[in-house]
Amino acid sequence: MTTVPRTGFLLVLSSPSGGGKSTIGRQCLARMSDIAYSVSYTTRKPRPGERPGVDYHFVSREEFQRLLAADVFLEWEEVHGNYYGTSRQTVAESLAAGRDVLLDIDVKGGLEIRRRFADRSVLVFVLPPSGEVLARRLRQRATDSEEVIAARLANAAQELVFGRQYDYLVINDVLEQAVDCLCHIIAAERCRLARQQEFFRNFSENIKKYNKNKEL
Amino acid sequence: MTTVPRTGFLLVLSSPSGGGKSTIGRQCLARMSDIAYSVSYTTRKPRPGERPGVDYHFVSREEFQRLLAADVFLEWEEVHGNYYGTSRQTVAESLAAGRDVLLDIDVKGGLEIRRRFADRSVLVFVLPPSGEVLARRLRQRATDSEEVIAARLANAAQELVFGRQYDYLVINDVLEQAVDCLCHIIAAERCRLARQQEFFRNFSENIKKYNKNKEL
Repeated sequence: MTTVPRTGFLLVLSSPSGGGKSTIGRQCLARMSDIAYSVSYTTRKPRPGERPGVDYHFVSREEFQRLLAADVFLEWEEVHGNYYGTSRQTVAESLAAGRDVLLDIDVKGGLEIRRRFADRSVLVFVLPPSGEVLARRLRQRATDSEEVIAARLANAAQELVFGRQYDYLVINDVLEQAVDCLCHIIAAERCRLARQQEFFRNFSENIKKYNKNKEL
Repeated sequence: MTTVPRTGFLLVLSSPSGGGKSTIGRQCLARMSDIAYSVSYTTRKPRPGERPGVDYHFVSREEFQRLLAADVFLEWEEVHGNYYGTSRQTVAESLAAGRDVLLDIDVKGGLEIRRRFADRSVLVFVLPPSGEVLARRLRQRATDSEEVIAARLANAAQELVFGRQYDYLVINDVLEQAVDCLCHIIAAERCRLARQQEFFRNFSENIKKYNKNKEL
């Protein structure tokens, strides 16, 4: 198998709260070990099971403001009263090393990545099979109050407006199938002609030489 | 698993002669039985193993001209002195039945499909791992004379110019992996948000109702 140089891309995974994007992202990373994960900074409190430095860099609001002032973030957003930011350095280093990078960020952050990276970004929106299922999933997440749940659902309507501009929609009904879909998307995006320009150019030069010399 | 109505698409598979698109297409169809195949009409003579009505509809030049005059073809091209045409009816019926359709056609035909179907078409270009391998594969295909082989290689340079406008590039080095790539592309394209507008609209309406009534 020939190893072909390929341009890496940023894979943005977004969903309304309770959509399941983080679970899908984690399982996809477990299957495709060559993808880098951009660990976001957040001022939100850790949920049970979340590991600092692995799921998020958990920081205080003061620390977040300091990082913001130091231009550490490629993009940052306030979501449900908490700050979230993507490290500029992590993304740049991974792309430079030829790796694709998974970003688990909100829709506004996703569209900011699209604005900055254009064709080098791939935007995937995750939704449960229906609005009813979304509400039920949020209720089952015992960490949030009824008010927070209501606010998250109200926010979902707005997120759908932004999400409409995404490239792909993965419906998270059966988790395993949703993970399959995300893995297919990554594999397919690696086959984009625009990411294999160097191979294409070399091949074309090769054929032109043949036509000139009538031999290879 | 919820069955979601989805807009079908035309998957165009093209390559220079000897690129291996037909083998890849056949193996992909064997794996994904829900894809329709558009059997092209051609005035070319059958190669060993090719079955009439399955691989191609083999017709005389006179018959092709008659079909052309009857507006039977969605697109048609002359390639290496032979005519090739895609049946308008086959494609329309498959799409209407909600099936994706694989078209094994040349680059000019592919770009014609893009012009007519825009986002409902997906263009996949297949290339061997190098120009040298392409030349070797054509030589091993014993049915063609040296002149025909030379003409096909000269033509490849022109096909690469058209192929540059394709969406995907599948490198046919290890056949099995090339078939994997094509299957990933099809699975990913089915997840395009633009092909799931109806689901997206219903979901958005659902959430809006919840925000109005505060219950589902």
